[in-house]
Amino acid sequence: MKTSVLSSIGQRTTEPPISWLMHAALSRPNLISLAAGFTDNPSLPVAGTRALLNRILRSPGTGQPALQYGSTAGEPALRQLTAQHLRKLDVVATPSSQTGRRGVAATIYSPERLIITSGSQQLLYITAEALCNEGDIVLVEDPTYFVYLGILLSRGLRARSIRLERDGLELAHLEKVLQTLKRSGDLRRVKMLYLVSYFQNPTGATTSFGKKRGILQLLKQFERAAGHPIYLLEDAAYRELRFSGEDVPSALAIPGAAERVIYAGTFTKPFATGARVGYGVLPEPLFAAVKHIKGNHDFGTANLLQQLFARALASGAYRKQVRRLRQRYAHKARVMRLALEKHFPAAVEWGEPAGGLYFWARLPKGMSTGVKSEIFRAALKHDVLYVPGEICYADDPTRSKPNHEMRLSFGNASEADIREGIKRLGAVLNQLVK
Amino acid sequence: MKTSVLSSIGQRTTEPPISWLMHAALSRPNLISLAAGFTDNPSLPVAGTRALLNRILRSPGTGQPALQYGSTAGEPALRQLTAQHLRKLDVVATPSSQTGRRGVAATIYSPERLIITSGSQQLLYITAEALCNEGDIVLVEDPTYFVYLGILLSRGLRARSIRLERDGLELAHLEKVLQTLKRSGDLRRVKMLYLVSYFQNPTGATTSFGKKRGILQLLKQFERAAGHPIYLLEDAAYRELRFSGEDVPSALAIPGAAERVIYAGTFTKPFATGARVGYGVLPEPLFAAVKHIKGNHDFGTANLLQQLFARALASGAYRKQVRRLRQRYAHKARVMRLALEKHFPAAVEWGEPAGGLYFWARLPKGMSTGVKSEIFRAALKHDVLYVPGEICYADDPTRSKPNHEMRLSFGNASEADIREGIKRLGAVLNQLVK
Repeated sequence: MKTSVLSSIGQRTTEPPISWLMHAALSRPNLISLAAGFTDNPSLPVAGTRALLNRILRSPGTGQPALQYGSTAGEPALRQLTAQHLRKLDVVATPSSQTGRRGVAATIYSPERLIITSGSQQLLYITAEALCNEGDIVLVEDPTYFVYLGILLSRGLRARSIRLERDGLELAHLEKVLQTLKRSGDLRRVKMLYLVSYFQNPTGATTSFGKKRGILQLLKQFERAAGHPIYLLEDAAYRELRFSGEDVPSALAIPGAAERVIYAGTFTKPFATGARVGYGVLPEPLFAAVKHIKGNHDFGTANLLQQLFARALASGAYRKQVRRLRQRYAHKARVMRLALEKHFPAAVEWGEPAGGLYFWARLPKGMSTGVKSEIFRAALKHDVLYVPGEICYADDPTRSKPNHEMRLSFGNASEADIREGIKRLGAVLNQLVK
Repeated sequence: MKTSVLSSIGQRTTEPPISWLMHAALSRPNLISLAAGFTDNPSLPVAGTRALLNRILRSPGTGQPALQYGSTAGEPALRQLTAQHLRKLDVVATPSSQTGRRGVAATIYSPERLIITSGSQQLLYITAEALCNEGDIVLVEDPTYFVYLGILLSRGLRARSIRLERDGLELAHLEKVLQTLKRSGDLRRVKMLYLVSYFQNPTGATTSFGKKRGILQLLKQFERAAGHPIYLLEDAAYRELRFSGEDVPSALAIPGAAERVIYAGTFTKPFATGARVGYGVLPEPLFAAVKHIKGNHDFGTANLLQQLFARALASGAYRKQVRRLRQRYAHKARVMRLALEKHFPAAVEWGEPAGGLYFWARLPKGMSTGVKSEIFRAALKHDVLYVPGEICYADDPTRSKPNHEMRLSFGNASEADIREGIKRLGAVLNQLVK
């Protein structure tokens, strides 16, 4: 019995790199983790969630529906409220100069095009299932969300990386990659472009509305040669965690986006990560395919959690919590920035995030931060953990993989741990970075 | 643009037949549905769930962990409690004569082999992903759970049906099918046998422990020719909904089962279907593969729901609810049986279930109950809905698909609706069945 009994997917899906990091953390009780994407503990809405659940479960009239099965696409009330919420975000964010006289199209925010999922992660997964066969290509930012790279690897999909600037993808590079794929005959394998558009994981970059328009235009330009639509999958997981500057409209607000933009949103990160509810807005025929596949996964996300978010949205508790959280992360980001300024050597560069959970630090090229590097081992020895930048880069034969960066999260660590963790890391870097 | 942009999975995953039935139900406000697999509303533990959640969210110390991310395999406390719970079920159910002196093996119920999922449905899905490539074969009961057939169809897998008797699969037929597959060279594509072992959906049949042993033995016998393990996937979703007779041990209690049995269980059906938490016990290398794939799906089931069930198990609230539910379904099953005796023609046969949610009624052969049949249309006209038996049968070239049966659920309908629904259906059958 030499052949593995596992499927190709089973064989390809290995332990994610972040798990390895978590195990390392567990075995060192004094370790400060600036690696985890966990959110802030003290600001979790414990009392608020309790009050909302008490109202739902106060009587059989509201309690029974919350404890019963629902429908695969989600609770009608939550779909409605979510569609309104999202539309409002885009209306507020969009200057009328951007969309013309009629403003943001209402029909694109119809609850009929919206599905509730178990976190936005589930939407990312099922969209890949619905759209991509083994060998198909997804265009990604360089670097990008490493769990998404894990999905691609597991499903036998290929990634092509597009260079990332401070305001989003480098459009000229996107065009060049599309041209190259067209010439090699691979364009027909390109199904979508995956964009983490707000406070990107890992770099913190936010894609400008102009760039979103440019991306969508380029993708459309190559559709004829591809022989099918090329979708823009906008992952807006961090959108509501903005703590400075103005919100940017989503790609849904672009005139003509209705048929090509997939929007993945979540209530999990801005409210409570332990109550996993996300959502997606999708064009047909994708919407139906994703819904039917979700039917096979789980027939629909737990109703109790859906009702919780319906109440949170309708009562204003959600908005209140998001406001609170923004202040909290603004503060923690400031704590990390001050610590970086104080302890990190001048040769290390970082940008200041306007939202999200991460700083992205660049060491001089040639200084590896990878799990086998001197820096990583020294950091671990000094009981501090970061995410090595290299795991956020797809395998791409057209460039060598950068390995001189690190993702530093201020999400879960306390202020004291942020200060101490950056101090420890700074000591390591001051020793090893020239 | 003639080619579909969707993947093979996207194209193959169509609307499930049950959705169509649900739509039909929605458009007729007076319709009584004996079709849905929903559970009983009045007995949902609204107050109990409220009390449990209040205890969890009473303080930041217990509330914050419930509202934070957890680990992919599940909350350690819940994994521990679930493993104990399952072991206890098997220990109580297993006479020592069956397992030899040492009794049920403790190691097989280790929390390390147990993963928490979003309902047992998610475990069924991910197990298929981890084990089966397109074209692989899964052996199923004839008939079987129709959503599972949907998974196979969606993933391009083939089903081979094994005849079902009152106490489980017909072993001689299983052996014959395995022999045939061996001769045709298809045995290497057989990865598992899927068994709904308690109060089977749709027939209500329960597999005896002897049959489970026989199945496992036969599968092992053919492994050498297959070139790899052939797993027994035991779906025990209805196990705890027994209302008469004694529990049967799971296949985990069979000596030597550790490497070949996958057990899928759920807390959803016996407690609250709106709080979707299930679990799986799996051998390596499957356990690791399933865990990593689940990481890509959702990084783990919502912590709040996991904590809810950990409390429910630890406090005894779960056991209390299951006891209550059993009495309730015993009563509703009795109501349906009396109505069937009163209103159904003598030519229609049914067995009395000892648990679960369904009666399975057999009309004389040749009397079709399918969605396009006279009987189905007449029933809909009289505002009563059932699940046509034909959707529970796999496409299998070796036999013609039976279409003279119906699944009747007493789970969700009220006592009055059960009586009235069976009366209406009886009137239709008395007219159309000779």
